[in-house]
Amino acid sequence: MLICSKCSREYPERFRLRCSCGGTLLVRHELPPGFSDAFTGHLDMRRYLRLLPVSEEHLPELVPATTPVSRLDIGGVTAFFKLEYLQPTGSFKDRGTWVTVAKLREEGITEVVLDSSGNAAISLVIFAGRAGITAHLFVPAHTSPGKLTLLERLGGELHILNGDRMTVHREAVRFSEGEGLTYVSHWLNPYFIEGTKTAAFEAYEQLGVPDYVIAPAGSGTLFLGLWKGFWELKGMGEIDELPIFVAVQASGHESLCERSSVKSRLADGIAITEPPRLKEMRAVLDETGGTCVSVGDSEIARALKWLWGRGFIVEPTSAVVLAALWRLQKSGFIPSDSRVLLPLTGSGLKTVEGI
Amino acid sequence: MLICSKCSREYPERFRLRCSCGGTLLVRHELPPGFSDAFTGHLDMRRYLRLLPVSEEHLPELVPATTPVSRLDIGGVTAFFKLEYLQPTGSFKDRGTWVTVAKLREEGITEVVLDSSGNAAISLVIFAGRAGITAHLFVPAHTSPGKLTLLERLGGELHILNGDRMTVHREAVRFSEGEGLTYVSHWLNPYFIEGTKTAAFEAYEQLGVPDYVIAPAGSGTLFLGLWKGFWELKGMGEIDELPIFVAVQASGHESLCERSSVKSRLADGIAITEPPRLKEMRAVLDETGGTCVSVGDSEIARALKWLWGRGFIVEPTSAVVLAALWRLQKSGFIPSDSRVLLPLTGSGLKTVEGI
Repeated sequence: MLICSKCSREYPERFRLRCSCGGTLLVRHELPPGFSDAFTGHLDMRRYLRLLPVSEEHLPELVPATTPVSRLDIGGVTAFFKLEYLQPTGSFKDRGTWVTVAKLREEGITEVVLDSSGNAAISLVIFAGRAGITAHLFVPAHTSPGKLTLLERLGGELHILNGDRMTVHREAVRFSEGEGLTYVSHWLNPYFIEGTKTAAFEAYEQLGVPDYVIAPAGSGTLFLGLWKGFWELKGMGEIDELPIFVAVQASGHESLCERSSVKSRLADGIAITEPPRLKEMRAVLDETGGTCVSVGDSEIARALKWLWGRGFIVEPTSAVVLAALWRLQKSGFIPSDSRVLLPLTGSGLKTVEGI
Repeated sequence: MLICSKCSREYPERFRLRCSCGGTLLVRHELPPGFSDAFTGHLDMRRYLRLLPVSEEHLPELVPATTPVSRLDIGGVTAFFKLEYLQPTGSFKDRGTWVTVAKLREEGITEVVLDSSGNAAISLVIFAGRAGITAHLFVPAHTSPGKLTLLERLGGELHILNGDRMTVHREAVRFSEGEGLTYVSHWLNPYFIEGTKTAAFEAYEQLGVPDYVIAPAGSGTLFLGLWKGFWELKGMGEIDELPIFVAVQASGHESLCERSSVKSRLADGIAITEPPRLKEMRAVLDETGGTCVSVGDSEIARALKWLWGRGFIVEPTSAVVLAALWRLQKSGFIPSDSRVLLPLTGSGLKTVEGI
């Protein structure tokens, strides 16, 4: 079923973005008694199929990967970088898109609307296209040239708009309402989070429970997915405690942290000032004793250079988690000897020209 | 130990490219009694560490992935596309590079020479750089612009040469001999094949033994790696029969197939007319009852478009395996109901501008 994060009203497990009260929704399902009993034999995302609200027959043939983890020592902290950019379309979005498209197929939906800073649109056009679903993709004109070129090559109904990320979002909503089309925004879509939660399942198999999870938090799809994955592991009795969650935001685009006046241009993937799931993100910080960190472009650039120097070919938004780790080591929030999970979200191969 | 493919002379397991008789070398090691007993718990390439000739302490921190397989029906044939392009540097080469760099570290080698059409150089500069190894990279001037840009960003000692792939190879050899540096060409390096063989181990876990393996065959590093993986599975008593191997070459650059007069420009990754491991590749075709197929640019372009349409963002060389499958279905060599493994080797994100 779906459950409202605001008024706890329940809905059947259909494709739906909001409660009638306006609240956001999450999927709530019966958890199996044990985590490892739930595995399938697959070496890809289907490994956790029994923990997902989709049936095998509607799954897209293109399957997201289980991504590797690279372990590095950073000033006494053991950093586990999870290479989420090694997905079929070059970002973690594929996890959420894969579950979403399976659900859309199940419901027979054939035309949808999405707004994105680039990666979610690239992911959707690929998975939806193959499933016979027409995707209207609303992206800002300032989307990185590499991503725009790719979108143009991939087909789909591309709507390139002037204005910031929130303007593009509002236009997409207006269009979907006007045309009577299904709006599938990952900002709201509860099935998307079902996909991203599998990154936590994998991380748990790969390194156990980390002390801290440092995740980018724009709309919160990855941040909340990682939280939900660990929360379900706790629900299954597999772990006792959640990790402490750190939300990383970009200067000038903060929603959880205090808003700064200087706007980041590098972290375009999280330039989201009014995320619909803001309260849920805040609740995760409260529940786990976490914190929010806002990082600026000079820190992001330094972190990006560091990551490329270690062989991680990622896009600028991916570097915010390292910039945040450095900051929290300096402030003492994250002590030496901590074990920290840092997802690296998007491939730098899409943005090579721009770096 | 290392064993010569020509005179069967044995050598200790050090870094070495050729036998004193000029023959190429392969690693031969004691196989464990059972395949699944040999697994580690890892969800990445370290899964098969016990079957590799490297010790854990020298492994690069950046670890290649276990890649997903997408299953599609193509005219009655079940095609299993293995997404080898979802590796940290965007190609299957990372498997071989990872084992190679581990071996170089073990031996304390700090400066090496490689020639490449692009992907192997990108892979080496990333894995070697992090291990403190200086890499001299010889690439043709006609290397795709996206790959050259990436190489320039990644550092390493770049030598961009006019001339075809064989000319670049000869210059790299001359340079390494003149400077007294270790030449690490994947064309010869037996440790590289130890890495690529793990793609066969994974595929076996993912789909069992396919009826056919269709692999690009330029220098043969992937082709022979896949063969060695299945051959070791047979040696461990895990399987009874090898799949039938199909070697795919590019028009005008054939070594196993008859040489055509029209030169492919799209399949730059396998434009290798004199591969040192030619006899070994021929032996695999003989041993398994396989065949060689040469494909031209119009077929490659059609196959590439088909793959992009199904969401596989690959580079042109990757498409040769599908072009070959179509040809062998038409000729009747591969009958309906066959199960066919087709590795997709390189990411199209490096070459978006050029497609």
